[in-house]
Amino acid sequence: MERQRHQGMAKNTYMRWRLPLVCLLWEAAMIVLFGVFVRFGAEADAHWEEERREMNLTSDIENDFYFRYPSFQDVHVMIFVGFGFLMTFLKRYGFGAVGFNFLLAAFGIQWALLMQGWFHSFKDGKILIGVENLINADFCVGSVCIAFGAILGKTSPIQLLVMTLFQVTLFSVNEYILLNLLHVKDAGGSMTIHTFGAYFGLTVTRILYRPNLEQSKDKQGSVYHSDLFAMIGTLYLWMYWPSFNSAISDHGDAQHRSAINTYCSLAACVLTTMAFSSMLQKKGKLDMVHIQNATLAGGVAVGTSAEMMLTPYGSLIVGSISGIVSTVGYVYFTPFLESRLHIQDTCGIHNLHAMPGLIGGIVGAITAAAATEDVYGKEGFIKAFDFTGAYQTRTPSIQGGFQAAGIVVSLLMAFAGGAIVGGILKLPIWGDAAAENCFEDGVYWEVPEDEESDVYHMHNPDKPASP
Amino acid sequence: MERQRHQGMAKNTYMRWRLPLVCLLWEAAMIVLFGVFVRFGAEADAHWEEERREMNLTSDIENDFYFRYPSFQDVHVMIFVGFGFLMTFLKRYGFGAVGFNFLLAAFGIQWALLMQGWFHSFKDGKILIGVENLINADFCVGSVCIAFGAILGKTSPIQLLVMTLFQVTLFSVNEYILLNLLHVKDAGGSMTIHTFGAYFGLTVTRILYRPNLEQSKDKQGSVYHSDLFAMIGTLYLWMYWPSFNSAISDHGDAQHRSAINTYCSLAACVLTTMAFSSMLQKKGKLDMVHIQNATLAGGVAVGTSAEMMLTPYGSLIVGSISGIVSTVGYVYFTPFLESRLHIQDTCGIHNLHAMPGLIGGIVGAITAAAATEDVYGKEGFIKAFDFTGAYQTRTPSIQGGFQAAGIVVSLLMAFAGGAIVGGILKLPIWGDAAAENCFEDGVYWEVPEDEESDVYHMHNPDKPASP
Amino acid sequence: MERQRHQGMAKNTYMRWRLPLVCLLWEAAMIVLFGVFVRFGAEADAHWEEERREMNLTSDIENDFYFRYPSFQDVHVMIFVGFGFLMTFLKRYGFGAVGFNFLLAAFGIQWALLMQGWFHSFKDGKILIGVENLINADFCVGSVCIAFGAILGKTSPIQLLVMTLFQVTLFSVNEYILLNLLHVKDAGGSMTIHTFGAYFGLTVTRILYRPNLEQSKDKQGSVYHSDLFAMIGTLYLWMYWPSFNSAISDHGDAQHRSAINTYCSLAACVLTTMAFSSMLQKKGKLDMVHIQNATLAGGVAVGTSAEMMLTPYGSLIVGSISGIVSTVGYVYFTPFLESRLHIQDTCGIHNLHAMPGLIGGIVGAITAAAATEDVYGKEGFIKAFDFTGAYQTRTPSIQGGFQAAGIVVSLLMAFAGGAIVGGILKLPIWGDAAAENCFEDGVYWEVPEDEESDVYHMHNPDKPASP
Repeated sequence: MERQRHQGMAKNTYMRWRLPLVCLLWEAAMIVLFGVFVRFGAEADAHWEEERREMNLTSDIENDFYFRYPSFQDVHVMIFVGFGFLMTFLKRYGFGAVGFNFLLAAFGIQWALLMQGWFHSFKDGKILIGVENLINADFCVGSVCIAFGAILGKTSPIQLLVMTLFQVTLFSVNEYILLNLLHVKDAGGSMTIHTFGAYFGLTVTRILYRPNLEQSKDKQGSVYHSDLFAMIGTLYLWMYWPSFNSAISDHGDAQHRSAINTYCSLAACVLTTMAFSSMLQKKGKLDMVHIQNATLAGGVAVGTSAEMMLTPYGSLIVGSISGIVSTVGYVYFTPFLESRLHIQDTCGIHNLHAMPGLIGGIVGAITAAAATEDVYGKEGFIKAFDFTGAYQTRTPSIQGGFQAAGIVVSLLMAFAGGAIVGGILKLPIWGDAAAENCFEDGVYWEVPEDEESDVYHMHNPDKPASP
Repeated sequence: MERQRHQGMAKNTYMRWRLPLVCLLWEAAMIVLFGVFVRFGAEADAHWEEERREMNLTSDIENDFYFRYPSFQDVHVMIFVGFGFLMTFLKRYGFGAVGFNFLLAAFGIQWALLMQGWFHSFKDGKILIGVENLINADFCVGSVCIAFGAILGKTSPIQLLVMTLFQVTLFSVNEYILLNLLHVKDAGGSMTIHTFGAYFGLTVTRILYRPNLEQSKDKQGSVYHSDLFAMIGTLYLWMYWPSFNSAISDHGDAQHRSAINTYCSLAACVLTTMAFSSMLQKKGKLDMVHIQNATLAGGVAVGTSAEMMLTPYGSLIVGSISGIVSTVGYVYFTPFLESRLHIQDTCGIHNLHAMPGLIGGIVGAITAAAATEDVYGKEGFIKAFDFTGAYQTRTPSIQGGFQAAGIVVSLLMAFAGGAIVGGILKLPIWGDAAAENCFEDGVYWEVPEDEESDVYHMHNPDKPASP
Repeated sequence: MERQRHQGMAKNTYMRWRLPLVCLLWEAAMIVLFGVFVRFGAEADAHWEEERREMNLTSDIENDFYFRYPSFQDVHVMIFVGFGFLMTFLKRYGFGAVGFNFLLAAFGIQWALLMQGWFHSFKDGKILIGVENLINADFCVGSVCIAFGAILGKTSPIQLLVMTLFQVTLFSVNEYILLNLLHVKDAGGSMTIHTFGAYFGLTVTRILYRPNLEQSKDKQGSVYHSDLFAMIGTLYLWMYWPSFNSAISDHGDAQHRSAINTYCSLAACVLTTMAFSSMLQKKGKLDMVHIQNATLAGGVAVGTSAEMMLTPYGSLIVGSISGIVSTVGYVYFTPFLESRLHIQDTCGIHNLHAMPGLIGGIVGAITAAAATEDVYGKEGFIKAFDFTGAYQTRTPSIQGGFQAAGIVVSLLMAFAGGAIVGGILKLPIWGDAAAENCFEDGVYWEVPEDEESDVYHMHNPDKPASP
């Protein structure tokens, strides 16, 4: 431990006052802002009884809670267990993966409730929240979890909190531009969550480039059991993705359809991932990295179009392609990005979120452009794309154009925002670790001294193996 | 690694072209068949708005999605995390357990949507799918996961895909005979899923008998942490089984009742399993194998009768008995099956699925035969057994007879199908491993080289322990 | 193993006849009592069709099953995976943590269905059960799981079953006093579940004080992977707590509101826990014990008030405070309780359940006392506090007084009950282990002999490392 603290001197990773200060100040700010702004929406307020009568609802079951709460809980699991455990694959960064993900997400959802609330649920000076706001807050934080994947193991918890603050803010602005100004459909967030989150994270990690990272190369791999822990994350993301893509779709057929399309896309994605994982490896063996990640690309890639009439076979096609693209990405693009573009992408989010997110945006634009009243029905057509009010005259092809514009806006916001935030995170005040201590829980966590931690001890030769 | 590849020469386990070929060809076939046949059902189609009005439904909440989606997600977790992690108990086959289960299930659900669709959801040349189809596809694949348990560690991924193709087909035929021709009730699948799946798998493993399997005996056990991983699978299966048995029951009381009966049966099963696990061991200690498996027998054994008026105490009785039978099976029957009948049953599916499945079929037949209008109410009686149309004149005792016939048909289909498929899998072209490499992830997976993998290294003495 | 069995002679831990006897006798008793008393409630009975018409419900979706089943499943996961895995943090007690929790909960829910049924669902000599009863049974068992946390690793499975029998009984009596006699609101169980369960467990562990427990001090810690297993438990408890607190609230706004308040409280709690975990450690590093436990205090502390108009910012405040109190408790109170009061609290339930439970009771009393018709609306006010019938004339301040009385009653029941049950458990007939064998799975479980179990072997020097 001594040696490490010693190294920590050069890079001061001492968190004792900085981390508590940031956490407590920010939580205090949340309390004040919630006190000023946040109230229960009509369906969660004790006045609901009267409200219900006014809205002419015959039953409590019409409360939005019953339409969305099960999906909310699935999304919640994806954010905290899904992303958290997916990132435990590193042999000595399991605490950081699960724990920091927990920290940033818990802060992020509070800030997201405010930011998204101001943009979307603001009425008479108050933000009125209900279960849909909780889902949206989780979604917003999902984009931060994605970006976290790129910088996993290389940043301090304070940096993560700072990044969360800014990224949630930018996410909300970008989301507002897409959904409200461009009137774009993106219920599963291919553009707003995945494309934005991934390119934001990749830009940040580019700015934070560490030339000597190979000093901790031995800790960048997995061990047998850490790969199994990661599979818990993978499977929960995979299983619940139909809930993710359908969680905020319109009641009824749209939620139903989103779930089916996503289910189909993900199933296809597993097969093409396995195929290419074996094909691209000299000995034909399957690689856990691909199974843990590329199998999920199918969920990302139908994020925009799942609630549209993509059709089950369309979903199979999209899922198949995204599995291939993602696996190829892990084998060829990730090393290229690192060696040539100096983008050190710990979890390979470029393959799991960035490229499939772009595919998702494009597929969404095409599906929207191809929509006809024949396929959707007269009413269904209007309802699916909200072609009402100011948008009454929009045609599918124009909608397709706006969808495409949404991709571009998301990319620009990600690059610009990532550059700025990366710059802020580069300041030498946040307590990140030296290159040789990256991917190592011992820097920020009390780690139990035990027989299993040989890996850790090996790199602390001056510490005896047993107390 | 060299030594292993060397051994692999005798048995060629090189997957590089075969596995990708099978995966990609089959996924391509799925895309074509889905393109020709599969469309959204009315409740998932954008025309739903109009449909709803025609069906006189007052609210979107009447969409079947809201009746079944939460149960669907629970079933989904059971198939992928439940079965996947339950099988991670082997010390060096965690990747194969979770990963191959993932592969076969992802393929299987696509093929099941088609097969079951042709039989049950075919209209005007199209298969119309909704959330109930997704559940049924998961159910169908559940029977493959069960069979996988018998051959776990001894087969190549290609063999598993081939088996899945055939088993899903046979499952669908058997299910059609039972549900449509015999008009049998089996909502939780004691017969269609468990009895059929288990005896199918046992027949396959009998055909694939490996006389020299004791060569890998040292890898057939568990290690401390692999037993904990397996408990994740166990608990998710146990907790969500009420959803499994109620997922496709009729709306309302039937779903409600199924969940309660299953909850009760499972609770009782835990106590008798613990009792017999301790009683049958000389030192009186509990055996993780029993806790991981036999505690689930209660869910299997009420699969047919849970939606009937089995009553809570009836469920406790069935659960208690099945826990005992299953635990006794692990202690006495499994060794007997292996030594005398040459049935090598890796996970003991005979104890967890075969015998409890038979119990479930029998209990279902008795419960149906004992049904009275007094207990069910006039309407409830007709609704519970669908005694309408051509079946208007069926009496409970006749129904009981047909239920019993369903068991026999399932057994015959399992034996015949298993024999044929076992024969196909015996062909020396599928890339299965030699006996001494069974239960070893290194054959088909890139395994991280690390300090924890001593077990693995021990059997690769020609490889240095550290790179 | 020899040495251990030898030690076991002094303390006879041989379970072979005792454990099976208790399990089988008790299960037999359950079957008889269920046979005499338990029947399906109207919504789960096959007569539902007729019932529904009488109750004037237009649709099956009005069945309580659809209002509560998703929450029930979340609660179910919390009890079995949440509590079970949370307690796997000990390096060599994972089997006992998950397995004994499984055993006691499976027995407890059966006995709770009866006990709570007699008090709350008894009609014409029968207990009529539905999904709400299942949730309440899980809740009741939750209080036993909490108490189990205090004595984890130091008791035999028989002791746990005996404790469960008594604690479920006392829980039901206490719950009846609070809910029916005092007419107190406590949907999330701050008082009935947490305060009662924790102080009951702490009293039991005080009575069972083991002066020589430092003999097994080396096994009271965690190892790297056991901390990750524990995080599975933590996260599932954390994510599903909104379901826990809202599961039995009134349909509609109350369920909706409970979920939102709990979500907010938990999010805030994570930040203050992280802050104080770092602040109270000399090197400023985060401690897994705090992250695994104190992050959950926010859920406990809004258990009473979540369904009231606590408001989101009120929830943030309560969550923030409880995270601080809980973390401080782990650092300062737990050592104090052990050294001065001889309360050996393995999991620190005093910090996670006892103190936050008290906070929850107090916050509930204050929130109730502060209620106004203005905030709740005329109807909402009456509905929220059930100010109907005999309670028509209750004012908020009187309700607050009764809420406070509920805390006192729960404490008294816990102390008195814990003292009696502790005395019973102290009898030398239940097969608990000697001090030096505490926190060791090998006493009651078949433990695989493997390379990973060095920890275990170290303390069994007379056993060769390999068979």
